[in-house]
Amino acid sequence: MTPLAVALGDPAGIGPEIVAKAWEARDQAELRPFFAVGDPRSIGRIWNGPVERIDDPIEAERVFARALPVIPVHDAGEIEPGNPDLAGARCSLDSLELAAGLARAGGAGAVVTAPVSKAQLYAIGFAHPGQTEFIAERCGVAGDNTVMMLAGPSLRVVPVTTHVPISAVPDMLSIELLLAKARTTARGLTRSFGIQRPRLAFAGLNPHAGEQGALGREEVDIIEPAVCILRDEGIDATGPFASDTLFDARARANYDAAICMYHDQALIPLKTLHFDEGVNMTLGLPIVRTAPDHGTAFAIAGRSVANPGAMIAAIRMAADAARHRAFAEA
Amino acid sequence: MTPLAVALGDPAGIGPEIVAKAWEARDQAELRPFFAVGDPRSIGRIWNGPVERIDDPIEAERVFARALPVIPVHDAGEIEPGNPDLAGARCSLDSLELAAGLARAGGAGAVVTAPVSKAQLYAIGFAHPGQTEFIAERCGVAGDNTVMMLAGPSLRVVPVTTHVPISAVPDMLSIELLLAKARTTARGLTRSFGIQRPRLAFAGLNPHAGEQGALGREEVDIIEPAVCILRDEGIDATGPFASDTLFDARARANYDAAICMYHDQALIPLKTLHFDEGVNMTLGLPIVRTAPDHGTAFAIAGRSVANPGAMIAAIRMAADAARHRAFAEA
Repeated sequence: MTPLAVALGDPAGIGPEIVAKAWEARDQAELRPFFAVGDPRSIGRIWNGPVERIDDPIEAERVFARALPVIPVHDAGEIEPGNPDLAGARCSLDSLELAAGLARAGGAGAVVTAPVSKAQLYAIGFAHPGQTEFIAERCGVAGDNTVMMLAGPSLRVVPVTTHVPISAVPDMLSIELLLAKARTTARGLTRSFGIQRPRLAFAGLNPHAGEQGALGREEVDIIEPAVCILRDEGIDATGPFASDTLFDARARANYDAAICMYHDQALIPLKTLHFDEGVNMTLGLPIVRTAPDHGTAFAIAGRSVANPGAMIAAIRMAADAARHRAFAEA
Repeated sequence: MTPLAVALGDPAGIGPEIVAKAWEARDQAELRPFFAVGDPRSIGRIWNGPVERIDDPIEAERVFARALPVIPVHDAGEIEPGNPDLAGARCSLDSLELAAGLARAGGAGAVVTAPVSKAQLYAIGFAHPGQTEFIAERCGVAGDNTVMMLAGPSLRVVPVTTHVPISAVPDMLSIELLLAKARTTARGLTRSFGIQRPRLAFAGLNPHAGEQGALGREEVDIIEPAVCILRDEGIDATGPFASDTLFDARARANYDAAICMYHDQALIPLKTLHFDEGVNMTLGLPIVRTAPDHGTAFAIAGRSVANPGAMIAAIRMAADAARHRAFAEA
C-alpha cells in the first residue's frame, strides 16, 4: 500500500512529538507505513529515536521498520517548543503543501495533518480559515462542498455549522445546507469506510427536537423536509431526534453518523466519549485527509507528555480509508 | 430515618412497575425504607410481588422488609398500562399532592416522583408547567427560584434555561439569572450533598467559549462577570469553559456541578454518560425532591421491560440528601 504523508504541523507544537510517538507505537497499533513531512530537527528537539531523511515517498516503506522516515522541508529556524514563530509557521505551511501535493499526485496514499497555529499562519499571509480549506483549494474543491466529520471508536458526528455564535445558527440552517452536508457524508461513508448504505441520524436543533414546533420551528420547517428528500433519494436518513437521547450506546448503534446542527452538539458527545481518540476527517475531497481533533497544545509542548492517541487514530483511519477507496476503485 | 414517599405517577405509565422493581432491589441497592403513594391496583396490574396498604408513613419501616408499603389514594378507575386517561391523571395528581404534603409535614424524609403525563394533567386543569413547579408552590417557593439539577454517578449538570427554542436562549441569559441559579446550586450542593465548598464550572454558550468575543459576546458580557461576582462572594466558580472539553473524565474531576446555558448542553453529556441512571433533583426547596430523568414510557408500559435504574438512583439520592440535611441541622 502507498505510504501515508503526515505533515508535522507547527514545529513548536506537539505535532512532531505525537508523530514520533505514533511511529514508536507502529507495531502495537498495527500502523501501515507512513512518513513525516517537515523539519526533522523539530523531531530531534523532543525525541531521540531514529529519524531517517528520505527524498521520495517510495523509500518510506523500506525505512519505516527501522526509523521514522522524514521528507525534509526547509529549515524552520530556531525551534523552541511552546514558542511558535513566523519561521515555524512557514515551515508548517510548506509541509502541508508538500504533503497534500504528494497525496494529490498519488505518491502518498493519504494526508494526515498535525496541528498548526492559525494565529501564526495568518501573520504570514495565510488566507484560508484553516488547513481543511487550504487542502480543498489545492484539490480544486470549494471549501463549502467539504464536510468535517469527527470520529471516535463508537461515534461519528458531522456538525453542519461550525465556528459561529450560537445565535447565528438558526438562520444559517437551510434545507439546501442539510442536503449538501448529508449527501457528502453518505458518499464519504461509502467511499472511505466501505459502508454500502450509510445510516444518517439527524439531531434536532431545539430541546426535545422542538416537540412538533412547540419549542422551535426548525425541525418542522427545515430538518424534516430535508430528511424526506434524502429518503426519496434512497439515503437512509432518520430524525430529527432529541439530541440528548441520540448519543447513549443503544442510540449510537442505530446510525453510522449523526448529523448535528451546531458545533457543540457534535463535539460534546464526541469528546465526552472519546477525548483522546477523536479524529477529524474531511469528506468530499478527491484525497483522503485526516487530523487529530486537538490543537498545537503549546502549553505542554517540549515536555514529552503529549498523548499520541488521536494522532495514532488519525493515521489508522487514513490508512483504512485509503484501503477502502483502493478496493472500491479496483 | 424517616421513610421516603414515592409518588407513583401516572398509573398507566411505567411508574408503578419501576417503583415495584426498586423495592425488589432494596437489599442489593441498599435502599432505605420508602413507601409508595398511589393506587395499589396500578402496581398489581404489572407486578405480583407483595404489596401492603398502610395508613401512616410510620408503618412503612416495619412493612418494608416484607412488602412494598403503599398509602392508597382513591381509585384510578380502569387502569390499562399504556393508555392514560383522566381518572389516572387525577390519581397521579392526588398522589403527588399527598406525597409532597407528607414531606412538608415531616412524615416523609423526601419525595420522589415517578413520571406523569403532562397532556393528561393539563386536560384536568393542572396549571403548572410540571411537577416541580407544583411542589414548589406547595412549599411556598416561586418556581423561578428553584433549580433543576440532573445528576448521574460521575456528573451533575444545571441547565440555566430549559424548554425554550435555541434561538431564544441568548436573550434569556443575564448576569442575574446566572447568579441566582449558581447561588441556589451552591447552597443545594452543601445542604443536600454535604459538599462544604462546591466547585461550579460554567460552560460557555458559544463554540470554544466564544474565543474572547470572536464567536459571540455572551461569555464576555454575561458569563465572565457572573463568575467574577460569585468568586467575590466566596463561591468557587470557574469558567466559562469551551463546553466540548468540559465533560470528559479528567475535566469532570475538577468540579461538583457544571452550570450549562441550555437544555441540550446539560442533557447531552449527562445522557451520553448515564442514560439509565439520570436523576432530576430540585434544589431551592425546603424539602428534598428527586425524580428519575425519564418519562412515562407509555409505549413499553405493562410489558415488564422498564429499567428501574433511574428510579433506584432517585430513591438513593433522595435518601442521601435527607441524611445530609438531617446531619447538618442536628
